[in-house]
Amino acid sequence: MGNTYGKKFCITTFGESHGKAIGVTIDGCPAGLNINEDFIQRELDRRKPGQSKITTQRKEGDRAEILSGVFEGKSTGTPMAIVIFNEDQKSKDYAHIADKFRPSHADYTYQEKYGVRDYRGGGRSSARETAARVAAGAVAKLFLKQIGVEINAYVSQVGAIVISKSYTELDFSKTEDNIVRCPDEKVANKMIELIDEVRKNQDTIGGVVSCVIKGTPAGLGEPVFDKLHAELGKAMLSINAVKGFEYGSGFKGVSMLGSQHNDLFENKDEKVITRTNHSGGIQGGISNGQDIYFNVAFKPVATIMQDQESIDVHGNATTVSGKGRHDPCVVPRAVPIVEAMAALVIADFYLLNKASKI
Amino acid sequence: MGNTYGKKFCITTFGESHGKAIGVTIDGCPAGLNINEDFIQRELDRRKPGQSKITTQRKEGDRAEILSGVFEGKSTGTPMAIVIFNEDQKSKDYAHIADKFRPSHADYTYQEKYGVRDYRGGGRSSARETAARVAAGAVAKLFLKQIGVEINAYVSQVGAIVISKSYTELDFSKTEDNIVRCPDEKVANKMIELIDEVRKNQDTIGGVVSCVIKGTPAGLGEPVFDKLHAELGKAMLSINAVKGFEYGSGFKGVSMLGSQHNDLFENKDEKVITRTNHSGGIQGGISNGQDIYFNVAFKPVATIMQDQESIDVHGNATTVSGKGRHDPCVVPRAVPIVEAMAALVIADFYLLNKASKI
Amino acid sequence: MGNTYGKKFCITTFGESHGKAIGVTIDGCPAGLNINEDFIQRELDRRKPGQSKITTQRKEGDRAEILSGVFEGKSTGTPMAIVIFNEDQKSKDYAHIADKFRPSHADYTYQEKYGVRDYRGGGRSSARETAARVAAGAVAKLFLKQIGVEINAYVSQVGAIVISKSYTELDFSKTEDNIVRCPDEKVANKMIELIDEVRKNQDTIGGVVSCVIKGTPAGLGEPVFDKLHAELGKAMLSINAVKGFEYGSGFKGVSMLGSQHNDLFENKDEKVITRTNHSGGIQGGISNGQDIYFNVAFKPVATIMQDQESIDVHGNATTVSGKGRHDPCVVPRAVPIVEAMAALVIADFYLLNKASKI
Amino acid sequence: MGNTYGKKFCITTFGESHGKAIGVTIDGCPAGLNINEDFIQRELDRRKPGQSKITTQRKEGDRAEILSGVFEGKSTGTPMAIVIFNEDQKSKDYAHIADKFRPSHADYTYQEKYGVRDYRGGGRSSARETAARVAAGAVAKLFLKQIGVEINAYVSQVGAIVISKSYTELDFSKTEDNIVRCPDEKVANKMIELIDEVRKNQDTIGGVVSCVIKGTPAGLGEPVFDKLHAELGKAMLSINAVKGFEYGSGFKGVSMLGSQHNDLFENKDEKVITRTNHSGGIQGGISNGQDIYFNVAFKPVATIMQDQESIDVHGNATTVSGKGRHDPCVVPRAVPIVEAMAALVIADFYLLNKASKI
Repeated sequence: MGNTYGKKFCITTFGESHGKAIGVTIDGCPAGLNINEDFIQRELDRRKPGQSKITTQRKEGDRAEILSGVFEGKSTGTPMAIVIFNEDQKSKDYAHIADKFRPSHADYTYQEKYGVRDYRGGGRSSARETAARVAAGAVAKLFLKQIGVEINAYVSQVGAIVISKSYTELDFSKTEDNIVRCPDEKVANKMIELIDEVRKNQDTIGGVVSCVIKGTPAGLGEPVFDKLHAELGKAMLSINAVKGFEYGSGFKGVSMLGSQHNDLFENKDEKVITRTNHSGGIQGGISNGQDIYFNVAFKPVATIMQDQESIDVHGNATTVSGKGRHDPCVVPRAVPIVEAMAALVIADFYLLNKASKI
Repeated sequence: MGNTYGKKFCITTFGESHGKAIGVTIDGCPAGLNINEDFIQRELDRRKPGQSKITTQRKEGDRAEILSGVFEGKSTGTPMAIVIFNEDQKSKDYAHIADKFRPSHADYTYQEKYGVRDYRGGGRSSARETAARVAAGAVAKLFLKQIGVEINAYVSQVGAIVISKSYTELDFSKTEDNIVRCPDEKVANKMIELIDEVRKNQDTIGGVVSCVIKGTPAGLGEPVFDKLHAELGKAMLSINAVKGFEYGSGFKGVSMLGSQHNDLFENKDEKVITRTNHSGGIQGGISNGQDIYFNVAFKPVATIMQDQESIDVHGNATTVSGKGRHDPCVVPRAVPIVEAMAALVIADFYLLNKASKI
Repeated sequence: MGNTYGKKFCITTFGESHGKAIGVTIDGCPAGLNINEDFIQRELDRRKPGQSKITTQRKEGDRAEILSGVFEGKSTGTPMAIVIFNEDQKSKDYAHIADKFRPSHADYTYQEKYGVRDYRGGGRSSARETAARVAAGAVAKLFLKQIGVEINAYVSQVGAIVISKSYTELDFSKTEDNIVRCPDEKVANKMIELIDEVRKNQDTIGGVVSCVIKGTPAGLGEPVFDKLHAELGKAMLSINAVKGFEYGSGFKGVSMLGSQHNDLFENKDEKVITRTNHSGGIQGGISNGQDIYFNVAFKPVATIMQDQESIDVHGNATTVSGKGRHDPCVVPRAVPIVEAMAALVIADFYLLNKASKI
Repeated sequence: MGNTYGKKFCITTFGESHGKAIGVTIDGCPAGLNINEDFIQRELDRRKPGQSKITTQRKEGDRAEILSGVFEGKSTGTPMAIVIFNEDQKSKDYAHIADKFRPSHADYTYQEKYGVRDYRGGGRSSARETAARVAAGAVAKLFLKQIGVEINAYVSQVGAIVISKSYTELDFSKTEDNIVRCPDEKVANKMIELIDEVRKNQDTIGGVVSCVIKGTPAGLGEPVFDKLHAELGKAMLSINAVKGFEYGSGFKGVSMLGSQHNDLFENKDEKVITRTNHSGGIQGGISNGQDIYFNVAFKPVATIMQDQESIDVHGNATTVSGKGRHDPCVVPRAVPIVEAMAALVIADFYLLNKASKI
């Protein structure tokens, strides 16, 4: 229950932070797709820890191994299982929190829900699980490339430092040029500085990842419940530490008048476009062929290198001490995760839409 | 595809704005629940058009009729079909837009997706569909009352007018005291004034509905994809005109430090509580027993009483004129819809959670 | 839960035997399909009671009314709700069994599962529910006609009277020529005689409905669980009174040798065929383009016009007396139901298969 | 698509016969269950090849490795991934059929559906996939033991040799005493003799596996589509080589009169029982607390050690020669598979039923 996502391009993830392995099964990837394993690995490398001074110093090789569903380099239409064996399992790092509830983690809620709990590194609630999503998302991206869809996410805010430019003014080829993954170099430097300062203070800070999807054909989305943006929202909100989602004009659209907000249709060179795009490429829950764009809000990472008051499993007051190697800010590593989830949503709706008309 | 919501408390809606009827089938409502038809009707009355000067003047009786699943006043565990026959079907009102794409409506995307389209009043994409959700949500509310869960939504923003108080300072019993459904009377009056002004200008304006859920037991939510807030987000984003969702600290949490944001656990009178609640009652995707609260952003209604440039189905430039009776601001009538969707999500997760442990 | 069938061409039925109405919502019917309401009604007429001396004498008009999803005669891609209001509700007929458990009915199990029960005419467990399936199946048939699929069911056994001919020797245009719906007139007469005799003895008798699907393209079925024959089996077993399902060689295939049973492939006029068809048109759970054929076993109807010992809801011994107007043999009216469920399965798999390859 | 089974106790299998591994993810197993790995292995050993002279001589260790979802010996409520690495991968055994369609195998249909195909040992269509089901079924059995449900399958027919005794006359503790898994020793010897003879003739033969489920509480099953027997039927029909399913009186019930077939209720020592059990423990699709029993028909294995005419992927006539190590009769090894699928169905419905009443 709850570990499967998608209706046609359908993934099921498994694995705990400090268990033997994490992984994913992809069921419903169309047959005949060239599966570039190097690309999958490159996507995982973008997410993996230890990339820079502003991410956790944990070392995880994160080698993806495909166990099934691929034959002679092509997807066969059968389930593709991808497994990543856990290497750096310092379970002893976690003995000190075995019977404590870390503030704003999932320790308490997992204990309440399940009665038992793998406390090592957060177990199933660890963001390590997202590596499996990135692997699956890489396969979805390979598929989307074939149909001309391109997805670019980037960091648009860290703490109070916000990129002021619209996405249309940015050059996404520069996103990977700096360690915070913000395509505006000046802003990127300020973000890096802030994260570094926060890290030195043994604290953490939140941020926003923005994402732009280009090339989506009109017609994707399955109203009234499975609207395209509703599924994008769910997919993003299912990522660890996410607190909010908005698309198109988003929360700012609230203050606009209808006469300002409406996107006027125009026939430009035999192609229907809208003059503005407050709709964010989605109208009535269905893509209209314009750019889809949205923002994802991440809270500050809950693990801080400071002592915090809390309680233990017996209800007694206790102190939780920060230990281990953790991210001071999650957004740089969240960029490939947001892209992966976006790719999974678009791939799924693309396949679902094949049956809309006779 | 896409018209069913929920896994255990599961609803399927049907119907077009100007067809014979709209309705809903509820499959999975536990047997033995007292079905108070008056309560269902009262909830529908909160949503129906024509309530006040700041909502549309269309008259729709919206009488709910239960066709099945109830016997001698109790739910039987079999599907409960509720139908609302459409009365005020002025189809001719829509002849002028039969072959035009209204800006920022779903006309174009439905046409692209399906090839055919019921253009009368937006057809399936009309917010009229949400009446079916409210009817189903009323049944979910009846169930939730039995387990001590209470849901209160209210208007917290219209245009730039924002309620400044936290929800903890508000008296929800006052929400229904004014026509904008804002429990802070002073702010409410300003909102009403603004909407009225916008209406006179033949324009529309957006707003925010906030929602608070009290009494949810710890343990609801099915990570890693079906996290409680992820489903709440999807459910809200599936409502017409919604552009964003945030829960707990939301987008503001982005600028906070971990040391500020973390909610410290405390054992208070043998009950686990958190001193602050930036988590919004949900940690790791599972309810922790604290209040759940979230915001839902609505864009300005797309139908304005002004002429707008657009194109027709043949791609020719045309003008769309505003006609008919429409809401200048959707949020007052959206309050019961937000509550209904929240009730459906919580009821579903409550039932799903029954099987979490042996 | 449990009242929805199909993944893409997806139906949800509702309604009790003696409630206000029964009905169905079809979600996922492709847009642009011509919806012939007369055809839907004709299919319902094939199922309705009171057709002949060997079916129940109850009169039910069974007028199908489409509430949504059709515009100007075409499906719009949105949910199609079809409702059949109950007319002949002689609730008083059932007062005598209100607190008794009729032998081999679902009275006891519904009471145990749900705690409450609509005892009138079996409530939800009544075969009346299948009218909703026939209506939905008629829409599926309209779709299948477009892609060249034809479905023919017929009665192949009543009691010990079995049609000895293979389906390939039968003329399906004769199925509707007699009241038992057996295309072999001689056998039909014997069956009618037997049913009539059983009826006079105030008893009931079982039978077998056989079904042949022609024109299915190769490739339908979604292994490993949603094999084409596995879903056909589930669909048939979900019909009231069904006790068994077999396809192709079926239970007889058990006694065959592999060398006899294997169907040899042959290229005949540039078309792949098999010389024999013990596979029943399905190999590895996927259609191979040959005829699909299967048998469905129906038990004798549980309602007999005799006194039977039983217990009441308090556990006390009691007598159940046969009353009302019931079928002495269910199979003649089951023919359109079997066809309807087959049509729903094939339509669903056809749409699902659209996404198998890039 | 199609590789996931169950709604609450939900499994997804993956893997090809000659790929790196096969495996399964179980999502929804209740937390707190003691996971006995030895038991899982013992169940796999009952299914594995090379057990006796009447099964294939292939050697497969079939070591199950649990990658996730278990902590300190207990299920944690998170997905349990179990993987079995393939050892004995003689791919070269299959070079001779790389471009041929073996009669009555899934070669042709997979090629048609997917365009590509892992031809080695049947790839995904190989019965090797059922090892993953047996592993998952073992976990379901561990759960069912806790609630008092016991499942026993056995071989009741091989070719024309049928066990004549009812299951009530058999001693299931003797099922594992002989290599054919028939609890009646005399019949077992005849079956073994027949299989051995068939094997020497380089042929294969079909059979029937019967299954009895004791201790199921009343109330399991989710009508109208997800009836308990309908899901049991689907689950069984999804097993390789299955051609038919019947429960209770089954196909024989067809020839009975209602007055013979009806099971009269009786209150025996404050427990509701039925005097006979033609219903097979299921009425209206819901368990009534009596024994559930059913038969599963298996066709003769398609791989025979004889030359057969066929065609290749280019449509040219060719000859397929029998090679490799295969089962002359599948039913002895199918016994644990039938039990596994039955356990998965019952566990799923048990969990689903927890939400039936308030």
